[in-house]
Amino acid sequence: MKKIAVVGLGIIGGSICAALTKAGYEVDGFGRSSASVEYALKAGYIRNKGKCLADYDVVFLAVPPNATMDYLDNGSYKDGALVTDICGIKKSLEELVYAKPRNYRYVGLHPMAGKETSGISSASSELFKGANVIITQAAQTKAEDVAEIKEYLFAMRFGKIVECSAETHDKKIALTSQLAHIVSNAYVKSNEVKGCDGFTGGSFQDMTRIAGVDEKMWTQLYMGNRERILAELNGLIEHLSVYRNALETNNAEALSEALKEGRLIRETIKRGND
Amino acid sequence: MKKIAVVGLGIIGGSICAALTKAGYEVDGFGRSSASVEYALKAGYIRNKGKCLADYDVVFLAVPPNATMDYLDNGSYKDGALVTDICGIKKSLEELVYAKPRNYRYVGLHPMAGKETSGISSASSELFKGANVIITQAAQTKAEDVAEIKEYLFAMRFGKIVECSAETHDKKIALTSQLAHIVSNAYVKSNEVKGCDGFTGGSFQDMTRIAGVDEKMWTQLYMGNRERILAELNGLIEHLSVYRNALETNNAEALSEALKEGRLIRETIKRGND
Repeated sequence: MKKIAVVGLGIIGGSICAALTKAGYEVDGFGRSSASVEYALKAGYIRNKGKCLADYDVVFLAVPPNATMDYLDNGSYKDGALVTDICGIKKSLEELVYAKPRNYRYVGLHPMAGKETSGISSASSELFKGANVIITQAAQTKAEDVAEIKEYLFAMRFGKIVECSAETHDKKIALTSQLAHIVSNAYVKSNEVKGCDGFTGGSFQDMTRIAGVDEKMWTQLYMGNRERILAELNGLIEHLSVYRNALETNNAEALSEALKEGRLIRETIKRGND
Repeated sequence: MKKIAVVGLGIIGGSICAALTKAGYEVDGFGRSSASVEYALKAGYIRNKGKCLADYDVVFLAVPPNATMDYLDNGSYKDGALVTDICGIKKSLEELVYAKPRNYRYVGLHPMAGKETSGISSASSELFKGANVIITQAAQTKAEDVAEIKEYLFAMRFGKIVECSAETHDKKIALTSQLAHIVSNAYVKSNEVKGCDGFTGGSFQDMTRIAGVDEKMWTQLYMGNRERILAELNGLIEHLSVYRNALETNNAEALSEALKEGRLIRETIKRGND
């Protein structure tokens, strides 16, 4: 059986360990903190604490973007090891990997799953069940490597696998994930947030659920996809300004038009994304 | 037993009927469409189709803001009837009611419950279970009227009742509900929405769930709380511009600061609103 290593025992890394172990794979974990390694051992998510990364056939890098780039560029891997990562940005990683010859095979991953909490105590063998996962492919990507990765993804019980270029990934994710975290983070900055307990329903909870981002990791993600997220953010501000201007000029018709436009778009995407 | 009428058989009106009937009250329904009245009768949500509003001791107005104002100003009620409404704006309604003597008693309500779908087919006796509900009070509001309304609210199984002035309501709701619907409606207008199926996780779903607003009703709500929502929208755009400017100037430190600020605020409201 292939030896699998997971580097980084946060919510995603921990969940990869838990899901693959549950599916019958032999998984060892590398964690920065001894507490998370202890947790993973006790919970039965991993077989052993990893010692030497070069001993493994398959390596999942589940650490923040900058650390991932460091591992991809400077890590020591077994010849021909399959190395993958779970970062929310893909183009810059891919460029780094293919900038020079590597002794490992690389495939980029992005599991579209998570929680508003972090750390291995939030991990679960069920985290990926039914979720989307993206595999990014370059000209250099080999079909058999993708096929091997898919075996693990199915074992983790992802619901849907999407394969695309790193460029497409970065463009879509800027909207579907990165912009959402900025909006949520900005939303709570209203002066009226104080004392709004009791005045909230599902809309407010949805809007603010992911506001508590880890600023270090997310700054790395944003800086690594700067132009795309900037375009999305500019677009959103522009769209919001339409409602703002309609309100400012007391123009009910223009406001209604803007709302209708959004409703119609929402209806077209409804079936695909719910 | 007091005779209760519910005017408007959409998701909220239908759910009031269903919940009060389930709790043992006798409820009749007034609906604009015969289909919704039929539905309410068949589902057992109401006892009878209402004929004359002036026959009832208690009236729940569950129609859009403009129609509510029309009912409050021009409806015929039994002397001393308790009339309430469920609109998302309260100050303008209150001003209208107290502009001249009325033969009815008024208390304003705002149930913080709903779904992204509408109509009586989305109604449920369980819709309000555990949800927040706001009772607005003016100088003219009588304690015994509020006590009577609360009896019905507990019967509908609301989780928490908040009592406040119409001004406070309108200020808080501008943030917790009205702004959220504009943001969601604007969010889907990105060019990248097309083809984003498979690239979405919980963040995108949360951000876009309520985008499909009924533009007629929401325009009435927004125009009825124009200044507050304008202030919130301006504030949000201003906050978003901080992240935008940090990205534009490639300033990772400023971006991280902005994200940290939001995270810290999110942590302070966490306990109260989750």
